[in-house]
Amino acid sequence: MNLKEIAKIINSNFNGEGFEVTKMNTLKDATKTEISFVANSKYIKEIQDSNAGAIIVDKHTKEYVPDDCLALVVDSPYWQMATLSKYFAPPIEDETLPVAEIGEGSKISAKAEIANGAKIGKNSTIMAHVYIGAEAVIGDNTIIYPNVTVYRDCKIGSDCIIHANTTIGSDGFGFATNKLGQHRKIYQNGNVVIEDDVEIGSSTTIDRAVFGSTLIKTGVRIDNLVQVGHNCVIGEYSVLVAQAGISGSTTMGRNVVMGGQSATAGHLSIAPFTTMAARSGVTKSIKDSGLTFAGFPLMEHKIWLKLQAKIARLLK
Amino acid sequence: MNLKEIAKIINSNFNGEGFEVTKMNTLKDATKTEISFVANSKYIKEIQDSNAGAIIVDKHTKEYVPDDCLALVVDSPYWQMATLSKYFAPPIEDETLPVAEIGEGSKISAKAEIANGAKIGKNSTIMAHVYIGAEAVIGDNTIIYPNVTVYRDCKIGSDCIIHANTTIGSDGFGFATNKLGQHRKIYQNGNVVIEDDVEIGSSTTIDRAVFGSTLIKTGVRIDNLVQVGHNCVIGEYSVLVAQAGISGSTTMGRNVVMGGQSATAGHLSIAPFTTMAARSGVTKSIKDSGLTFAGFPLMEHKIWLKLQAKIARLLK
Amino acid sequence: MNLKEIAKIINSNFNGEGFEVTKMNTLKDATKTEISFVANSKYIKEIQDSNAGAIIVDKHTKEYVPDDCLALVVDSPYWQMATLSKYFAPPIEDETLPVAEIGEGSKISAKAEIANGAKIGKNSTIMAHVYIGAEAVIGDNTIIYPNVTVYRDCKIGSDCIIHANTTIGSDGFGFATNKLGQHRKIYQNGNVVIEDDVEIGSSTTIDRAVFGSTLIKTGVRIDNLVQVGHNCVIGEYSVLVAQAGISGSTTMGRNVVMGGQSATAGHLSIAPFTTMAARSGVTKSIKDSGLTFAGFPLMEHKIWLKLQAKIARLLK
Repeated sequence: MNLKEIAKIINSNFNGEGFEVTKMNTLKDATKTEISFVANSKYIKEIQDSNAGAIIVDKHTKEYVPDDCLALVVDSPYWQMATLSKYFAPPIEDETLPVAEIGEGSKISAKAEIANGAKIGKNSTIMAHVYIGAEAVIGDNTIIYPNVTVYRDCKIGSDCIIHANTTIGSDGFGFATNKLGQHRKIYQNGNVVIEDDVEIGSSTTIDRAVFGSTLIKTGVRIDNLVQVGHNCVIGEYSVLVAQAGISGSTTMGRNVVMGGQSATAGHLSIAPFTTMAARSGVTKSIKDSGLTFAGFPLMEHKIWLKLQAKIARLLK
Repeated sequence: MNLKEIAKIINSNFNGEGFEVTKMNTLKDATKTEISFVANSKYIKEIQDSNAGAIIVDKHTKEYVPDDCLALVVDSPYWQMATLSKYFAPPIEDETLPVAEIGEGSKISAKAEIANGAKIGKNSTIMAHVYIGAEAVIGDNTIIYPNVTVYRDCKIGSDCIIHANTTIGSDGFGFATNKLGQHRKIYQNGNVVIEDDVEIGSSTTIDRAVFGSTLIKTGVRIDNLVQVGHNCVIGEYSVLVAQAGISGSTTMGRNVVMGGQSATAGHLSIAPFTTMAARSGVTKSIKDSGLTFAGFPLMEHKIWLKLQAKIARLLK
Repeated sequence: MNLKEIAKIINSNFNGEGFEVTKMNTLKDATKTEISFVANSKYIKEIQDSNAGAIIVDKHTKEYVPDDCLALVVDSPYWQMATLSKYFAPPIEDETLPVAEIGEGSKISAKAEIANGAKIGKNSTIMAHVYIGAEAVIGDNTIIYPNVTVYRDCKIGSDCIIHANTTIGSDGFGFATNKLGQHRKIYQNGNVVIEDDVEIGSSTTIDRAVFGSTLIKTGVRIDNLVQVGHNCVIGEYSVLVAQAGISGSTTMGRNVVMGGQSATAGHLSIAPFTTMAARSGVTKSIKDSGLTFAGFPLMEHKIWLKLQAKIARLLK
């Protein structure tokens, strides 16, 4: 889509020479043919390092945009980013794509639906009532139990097991809100990538990224009814116990354990080999490796034990 | 069903002139041809304003029933209400209903099941392994992702998105318990109504009402793994974050935000523009608009912050 | 599989006379033709009462194995138990089993999948997109709503209702972890047994046992989005409210109530007629019947109320 057309869609005055915009992306990852946005002044400092060809900004931010990048000025960049996101969303299914490729030895239930453009590796099992979306890729020796939904463009590695009723790649919870309190959807045009040797329980939900990928690394174990928000990175061999809730853009190192019903706030990073007890509520990043935490607000587990002792004394 | 027959089913002595009872309903909503019940003395005061044609009561409550309303006296009104509810439950599916109507431009997967009596609007997308029940109604431009189940009689508006593996209209958690500790199901003969421009995440569950409707108003955003109990009303543009649990008969005004893993007890009302932080546990109604709360028990967020500071000092 | 072959698989030196091993099992339940394991010194005392024909042990535990039982010595019994478990896992589906038996009067959707070897009783309803696995058994008058998955070998009684998108019998969350932090799956070769008159909500997950059965007894009521871990026993008429999480090997007596979002740690027992308020976190067994608890850490509800009053005073 030409930048001039984009300017019209988002109500921006733009008289310059346009270019063909191929994608929306973050400041950090955008390339010369891509468009990004700044909706919060804390990201102004990232503008100078961005390779984006164009950036949607408000009038106060315009001055920070370098000369070799085009600025589209709007009243509300976040709202207009939401507006524009719809135009970059691929169709849910695409009948013009080639019929799905199925590798040798794979067993696909006649009651599964494999969308055009999908690829299934060798010796995998796709059971009844599974849905594999357009251009999704499944590796070798992977088992997908009944009623699992894998949205378009998602990738699942080899030697994985996905249990029943789990959803891979549904839209992240993204929307802009205007002054009237109305919401506009931010289309989630990224995907989910699950590496090899990952097992995921039943009725777990892993959201696709808004840009880029939600990433589940090699050897991760995820239990039932776990929520993984958009753009999370779950490190190798990490363990997410039942009903844990991982908010968007949380990044975990390897071998992190999140106990049952634990949760993280968004945009945090958690050091490798951290253990969170059941019900932990993580609101700050954890920088030191190998520690055990508990409670909400979060504290080191040994301090949490002391706190419980003090509370017990309070009651006497 | 004639009132005489009902009296037999619930073991009530009734020798009067019966009438044809069309429905079970609450005291408040019941009309002349409908039957209601009083199972708790706190509802006695509502009897005089009820238009119900008959009421199931115990012997102590009989005297409050006005002359123009028939009283069916039983030992345990709640248990007998449960007994009777089964007789008013419609069949799960009904082959005698006409084949589903599908609006122009709608795309229905050959692997979806649309029960007889359902209606789908225009330009909607119903994907593989979706189930749409009898007499359910779906609006225009609505997308229903794979493996969603919409139970009979439920209504979903236009411009909605329902993500994979979500359930709309399963039975509310209702049963009577006798002195032996045994349970009897209260059939949930209401429905779920979802207005326009609502997006609902994956593996979320919204229960149908016991009487009337569970109501999700225009513009609401619901994340993954959220529970909405029977007879809730979720106000316009409200936001329910992942793993929130809204107990039965909770009523929210517009633009309420329920944080991740937050919850409400049942039968509460929450003022418009209230924000509940993640993990909030709401046990009382909120009357003043525009405030932010946190904690369990719930307190204003600024007080919760003070409490955390005091607890931190306790630990020194 | 012969014990000699097993010794090879798990890297154990074994030169004796082997025998045909029929199954892996716990020390307590194993019979003469079965193999068990000791991975934790606290189970050493159970060895002498075990009837297992062979036991996988480390070199320190070998001396406790009686003469009439064969010891397979390995470096890491838990890891090798995981290794071996795969060899005792039945195939997910088995086309050589007879076509499913369907009882008189049962209504099976053409869009359901009933695997070979399954049996459905009389007058039951199996709706669209349901999956019933190999050798699973469903009783009479049971209703299974759309998109439910019942894994192989599981049993559901008569007069049960299972709501949409629920999973019965997915694998328990079991794996061994080596010193490098890598995980190896422990195949869950047990099943789930649900007795009569049980109702289970939507998107609930009940895991199959590693050995033996996860057991849901007569009259239990389970709400939406509840997690029941492997090898749990839920007593008659117990009630699990929405989003409760019951960790593996929890045993409840009859008429236990677990409030919304409550949880238990694993391997606990809870006395009959115990009530846990919403959000309770149970970390110790409850021996006395009929009490009400709240909080995390758990305390009697009346003490929890006092604690809240003290905290309120702290804030003044």
